[in-house]
Amino acid sequence: MSSSDTNGELRVGMVGYAFMGAAHSQAWRTVNRAFDLPVRARMTAVAGRDDAKVRAAAAQLGWERTYTDWRELVAADDIDVVDICTPGDSHCEIALAALAAGKHVLCEKPLANTVEEARAMVAAAETARASGVRSMAGFNYRRVPAVAYLKQLIAGGRLGTVRHVRAVYLQDWIIDPQFPLVWRLQKEKSGSGALGDIGSHIVDLTQYVTGQSITGVSAVTETFIKERPLPSASSGLSAESSTETGQVTVDDAALFLARLSGGAVATYEATRFATGRKNGLRVEVNGSLGSAVFDLERLNELEFYDANRPGAEQGFTRILVTEGEHPYMAAWWPPGHIIGYEHSFTHQMRDFLEAVAVGKDPEPSFADALQVQQVLDAVEKSASAGSGWTTVPE
Amino acid sequence: MSSSDTNGELRVGMVGYAFMGAAHSQAWRTVNRAFDLPVRARMTAVAGRDDAKVRAAAAQLGWERTYTDWRELVAADDIDVVDICTPGDSHCEIALAALAAGKHVLCEKPLANTVEEARAMVAAAETARASGVRSMAGFNYRRVPAVAYLKQLIAGGRLGTVRHVRAVYLQDWIIDPQFPLVWRLQKEKSGSGALGDIGSHIVDLTQYVTGQSITGVSAVTETFIKERPLPSASSGLSAESSTETGQVTVDDAALFLARLSGGAVATYEATRFATGRKNGLRVEVNGSLGSAVFDLERLNELEFYDANRPGAEQGFTRILVTEGEHPYMAAWWPPGHIIGYEHSFTHQMRDFLEAVAVGKDPEPSFADALQVQQVLDAVEKSASAGSGWTTVPE
Amino acid sequence: MSSSDTNGELRVGMVGYAFMGAAHSQAWRTVNRAFDLPVRARMTAVAGRDDAKVRAAAAQLGWERTYTDWRELVAADDIDVVDICTPGDSHCEIALAALAAGKHVLCEKPLANTVEEARAMVAAAETARASGVRSMAGFNYRRVPAVAYLKQLIAGGRLGTVRHVRAVYLQDWIIDPQFPLVWRLQKEKSGSGALGDIGSHIVDLTQYVTGQSITGVSAVTETFIKERPLPSASSGLSAESSTETGQVTVDDAALFLARLSGGAVATYEATRFATGRKNGLRVEVNGSLGSAVFDLERLNELEFYDANRPGAEQGFTRILVTEGEHPYMAAWWPPGHIIGYEHSFTHQMRDFLEAVAVGKDPEPSFADALQVQQVLDAVEKSASAGSGWTTVPE
Amino acid sequence: MSSSDTNGELRVGMVGYAFMGAAHSQAWRTVNRAFDLPVRARMTAVAGRDDAKVRAAAAQLGWERTYTDWRELVAADDIDVVDICTPGDSHCEIALAALAAGKHVLCEKPLANTVEEARAMVAAAETARASGVRSMAGFNYRRVPAVAYLKQLIAGGRLGTVRHVRAVYLQDWIIDPQFPLVWRLQKEKSGSGALGDIGSHIVDLTQYVTGQSITGVSAVTETFIKERPLPSASSGLSAESSTETGQVTVDDAALFLARLSGGAVATYEATRFATGRKNGLRVEVNGSLGSAVFDLERLNELEFYDANRPGAEQGFTRILVTEGEHPYMAAWWPPGHIIGYEHSFTHQMRDFLEAVAVGKDPEPSFADALQVQQVLDAVEKSASAGSGWTTVPE
Repeated sequence: MSSSDTNGELRVGMVGYAFMGAAHSQAWRTVNRAFDLPVRARMTAVAGRDDAKVRAAAAQLGWERTYTDWRELVAADDIDVVDICTPGDSHCEIALAALAAGKHVLCEKPLANTVEEARAMVAAAETARASGVRSMAGFNYRRVPAVAYLKQLIAGGRLGTVRHVRAVYLQDWIIDPQFPLVWRLQKEKSGSGALGDIGSHIVDLTQYVTGQSITGVSAVTETFIKERPLPSASSGLSAESSTETGQVTVDDAALFLARLSGGAVATYEATRFATGRKNGLRVEVNGSLGSAVFDLERLNELEFYDANRPGAEQGFTRILVTEGEHPYMAAWWPPGHIIGYEHSFTHQMRDFLEAVAVGKDPEPSFADALQVQQVLDAVEKSASAGSGWTTVPE
Repeated sequence: MSSSDTNGELRVGMVGYAFMGAAHSQAWRTVNRAFDLPVRARMTAVAGRDDAKVRAAAAQLGWERTYTDWRELVAADDIDVVDICTPGDSHCEIALAALAAGKHVLCEKPLANTVEEARAMVAAAETARASGVRSMAGFNYRRVPAVAYLKQLIAGGRLGTVRHVRAVYLQDWIIDPQFPLVWRLQKEKSGSGALGDIGSHIVDLTQYVTGQSITGVSAVTETFIKERPLPSASSGLSAESSTETGQVTVDDAALFLARLSGGAVATYEATRFATGRKNGLRVEVNGSLGSAVFDLERLNELEFYDANRPGAEQGFTRILVTEGEHPYMAAWWPPGHIIGYEHSFTHQMRDFLEAVAVGKDPEPSFADALQVQQVLDAVEKSASAGSGWTTVPE
Repeated sequence: MSSSDTNGELRVGMVGYAFMGAAHSQAWRTVNRAFDLPVRARMTAVAGRDDAKVRAAAAQLGWERTYTDWRELVAADDIDVVDICTPGDSHCEIALAALAAGKHVLCEKPLANTVEEARAMVAAAETARASGVRSMAGFNYRRVPAVAYLKQLIAGGRLGTVRHVRAVYLQDWIIDPQFPLVWRLQKEKSGSGALGDIGSHIVDLTQYVTGQSITGVSAVTETFIKERPLPSASSGLSAESSTETGQVTVDDAALFLARLSGGAVATYEATRFATGRKNGLRVEVNGSLGSAVFDLERLNELEFYDANRPGAEQGFTRILVTEGEHPYMAAWWPPGHIIGYEHSFTHQMRDFLEAVAVGKDPEPSFADALQVQQVLDAVEKSASAGSGWTTVPE
Repeated sequence: MSSSDTNGELRVGMVGYAFMGAAHSQAWRTVNRAFDLPVRARMTAVAGRDDAKVRAAAAQLGWERTYTDWRELVAADDIDVVDICTPGDSHCEIALAALAAGKHVLCEKPLANTVEEARAMVAAAETARASGVRSMAGFNYRRVPAVAYLKQLIAGGRLGTVRHVRAVYLQDWIIDPQFPLVWRLQKEKSGSGALGDIGSHIVDLTQYVTGQSITGVSAVTETFIKERPLPSASSGLSAESSTETGQVTVDDAALFLARLSGGAVATYEATRFATGRKNGLRVEVNGSLGSAVFDLERLNELEFYDANRPGAEQGFTRILVTEGEHPYMAAWWPPGHIIGYEHSFTHQMRDFLEAVAVGKDPEPSFADALQVQQVLDAVEKSASAGSGWTTVPE
């Protein structure tokens, strides 16, 4: 399969159309308007189980046709890319089918709900890769310009030897005990709670920017509200609730210490009970020559401390990462004109399309995402075994 | 002319395709994907003087066809809306033609380069309005959710009687004396310098949020770099320069004191020489019951001080204006997921489309924009007459 | 008079013991503990009109003896320094008497309530200086380490040519219309309102750090609450009120535009009606090579933008001005351990004592303070004459 | 022993005069000037091993006489209070002697270098208490007004049930590998490294504000630079170095997860390798009804999130903790006038003097400090045993 088959178009079929589906749609729609690319994305089809809803979503989001069975979408001749935006329990089955059908695959994080499923996906991706089929995991925050720029700074040695990483991802959308038992609170649907949903982001992001991998962890997890009303109809992040209740089977919060392959020590925390923190992903890295801080609620900024500056002038510099010199930003607006959350997806699609067009593997790979899964797995094991040190398989 | 004529579509023709054209295109493309509206925008045509360039722009930005003469675009039967994104010296002529042709008009700020032109445009808009033709001036920052929310707070009495306004719009893109003499530095093209380009934004924004108008001013203007290299080819905000030089005929900076109709006193400053300030629009309002601060470089935030809170708990609250309760935000992402500069245009198009669809006048009107023009005019008059107090005509 | 006469001691007599007196006492008590100096301050006497109160103050603040007539203090043989902490209407008389008696004088700002008085004080200081008597005006904010450091940065050329100054001093302690008519609201006591009390600080501070003087102004002043309850007993910043009312005879707020001798344009604002701003002195300076921001509520910090840094790394650096390299800070605590408002007075006393000890004139001189007074005078003249441009005498 | 014996004076003898000694001296000198108290502190004597140095320190800091043997100071009839400011290895011996001599004791943190010593001190304090002798541990940060105010907010239920604590104390003063092996890097002198020196502060502070105690921990410690030059002459935080090297026997960084008695989960980190962080003590607490953040580098501020506010107005409020309503602040300056690090000691002395004067036990007690020691001990045990969960004895 090559993009030249389709007149410079890559025809995308998306599975799922809730929060992630809307974000991906915005990105597919925008990517070729903002960036000059060798290939254009076409929003060919979207699949969802409920016919009326998927039709409404297609009309709203701008997809050409719909399916109620993702298998048909995957099988369609005129689909080149399958974009998986469903809950984690269906990622593996859809990805395997898509790769087997020779479609390029973009799969939302976390890659799968278990390490076993993730391993199967990596194997399938490896097999498909031999025939030029590409696969990518959707850790979109890598494509926030400030994050990509932080990666450059560290890779360029500006922070020296990294000694400390401290990463939190703090949200508060379930602090109300009456918030219902949506799919994200059910282990069989979501695999885990805050750990997989948002903890996976900070694991990937910190490994990405430091270029180091987590080698071992010591963890604690907690479920503060153990029973919740059943949802009358669940839909993504919000839902109405009923009078019956059910068991919360995932963590509300996960905290862990870690060591990284380059010698750094780290703290990680993912929680949905940090009152007042809406999308509070914050990462600080301290190295022998400098430090940096990123905060997703101010994603256009990066704080950078350069220990090589004259003593009296040292301090954390608030870099507004909105200039033409910064990753991805030349495509957008004049200096100081900020971008939003959704742009991380547009940038992701940009990198995906370019990789497919030039025939190289996009990053992060399914193997990268498997490694994240193994970290999460080690966290759960440590938490269930008295917080004892648990190594992450290489 | 009614939208029902066109199957719920409003067919847009845009004149100009540089910075503003790109921002408007992104908004027209996105508005119906994000919002449920009674009418859909269709990106029918774009006009520009250079055929090759306008075709390239149309392909990049997603317009169906092109014109090299805006008069043809204005005359076309299948254009319902004319969106004017050219430099200020052509606004008047295009708007008059479009209104005469029965097209709804959205015109970028500043409305015109002179009060006289602006008056003619207001008159034309009034005439056209009688036959249901709508017109709107493009002060997009009114549609930043934090600004719209600040308007609500003040209108709801949460700040009490407004006593102080301090507003700055600080940029630094021409501090290099070798930066060429682009059209924005030529009075005949742009009318004025920082004053009209960015000063107009803070005049409109502060009048909008306070619900008060500026009644008089005392002003100083300055041109720090009086001669600059001529541009080899000018294009919006950046340009290559040549070895010949020419006279800078606009202000680099404009500062003024003002009184507002409700009794407040105010300071305003617009400059392109504030080193390090990229898009530094900052407004603070102090009232008898509270205060608020808005900063465009952090446009998802509003600082609000509520003097009615218990004494020990008082302080400026950093409101993350990203929640469903906030203006426009229910259309976007979950709590804490920020939006960008471009969304202000999407919101502007949303309000424009809705007003046209339901048959009411969108805001700000041309008359509102004329009033801004009269403030700018008073500023220039005061500055050229020893900073003496200069009243703004009602 | 030389310090050697008194065994390395300078015997201080302070007139007034309210807010300023308490701050000065803390500084006199601390200065020789924190700094190694060639001379020691001795807190010999304090004067106040009410015997019981001045005795209580002396006991509390640590002065050896008291006077109810400042003339006796000034005449005392064992007083080397007269420290004037009274309201502005008595500065001139006390200073003249003290200088005539051969005492070194430290006089709180504003130097006097009128330009005429200030001129008389300058003349007296010049005369006394011939016999080695020193005089200093108390603009303590010059001695905030971050301000002194900003002065160094600008003097060292790090900001290049200064183009913009914007300075505000915002407070809110009289927004309640029932706040009584204390002496600071009476022209005959205080000379002016916000203008002299806090506006004088930003005039001095900005002239000091830029090394430039204000050459002309255009101004507006306002008194929002024109009548207030008479105080039953006035005492500095707070007071109980009675049922009778009186006229407020000073400005609540003063705003002005200015030009500086080096070509910069500037905005200034002093107000006591900025709800939520407690001690909001904020100064921003933009130069051709850099910018800086100082905020008194975070007085241990200075934001510095260095336009010479690599483009992608530029931004405002939050310098924590608490290191040994920073002015005055080697005397205090380890890195990052902050100091407070009162330390500016301790540093002032340090510089005063050192100047007296080595026989040079401390700064700011009475002449410097007269120049500030002339700026304030020009502001009042412009405000009462339609904001017309008003030059400041050289 | 009662304060009435000494005419309302408590005669203080301080042991040690380096960094902590200077801070305590400033506080003893100031406390009765700022606060009205039933008893006055008198700076009677200071002890140190080197006669010349202790005499110089006494002259500089204002102590009446000196000792080269602390035992003599402890034995002196005219000493009522012994203030221990030495390194941790001598705390136990001095405290035991002082308590046995019937002196009130204020002992700097950490209470001792081992749990055994701390237990002995608690026992001695209990015995002495029976005869009215008071003892207090010097966790001065409890007396930062913002911290005391946070304690009030939590105790008043404003944060609801506390779910999360995250606390860091970040410094960077030994990142240079050539920084010498000062006493704080030698286990026999200091007991531990970052853990005891600064980690103890965040353990005490978080337990104090939440009213909960740490019940168990899982920990990692690290020594990044294992060998350092020997100091030619060590003195507190800085020192010259020699060419010989020695082993660093303490941790450079300590990280741990914890559970608190009220059900919260927590992360703690103390390090001297956080480049750019000078005195970076930062604590965030999330409860079911609100959250709060404290940062020692901005110690006059507290961020408070109140989940009971109207939805659209919620956010973190930056409270300037400088008002008369706030703990300790009525003694100082007008609104918005900030205080510094040293004031925490002045407040500590205030509370100590008042407790002694009225005959009640000051807090934190030696028993409170022992409990902190037990937490640190559990951290070291967990770190040396594969991070396994380690309970803290009650």
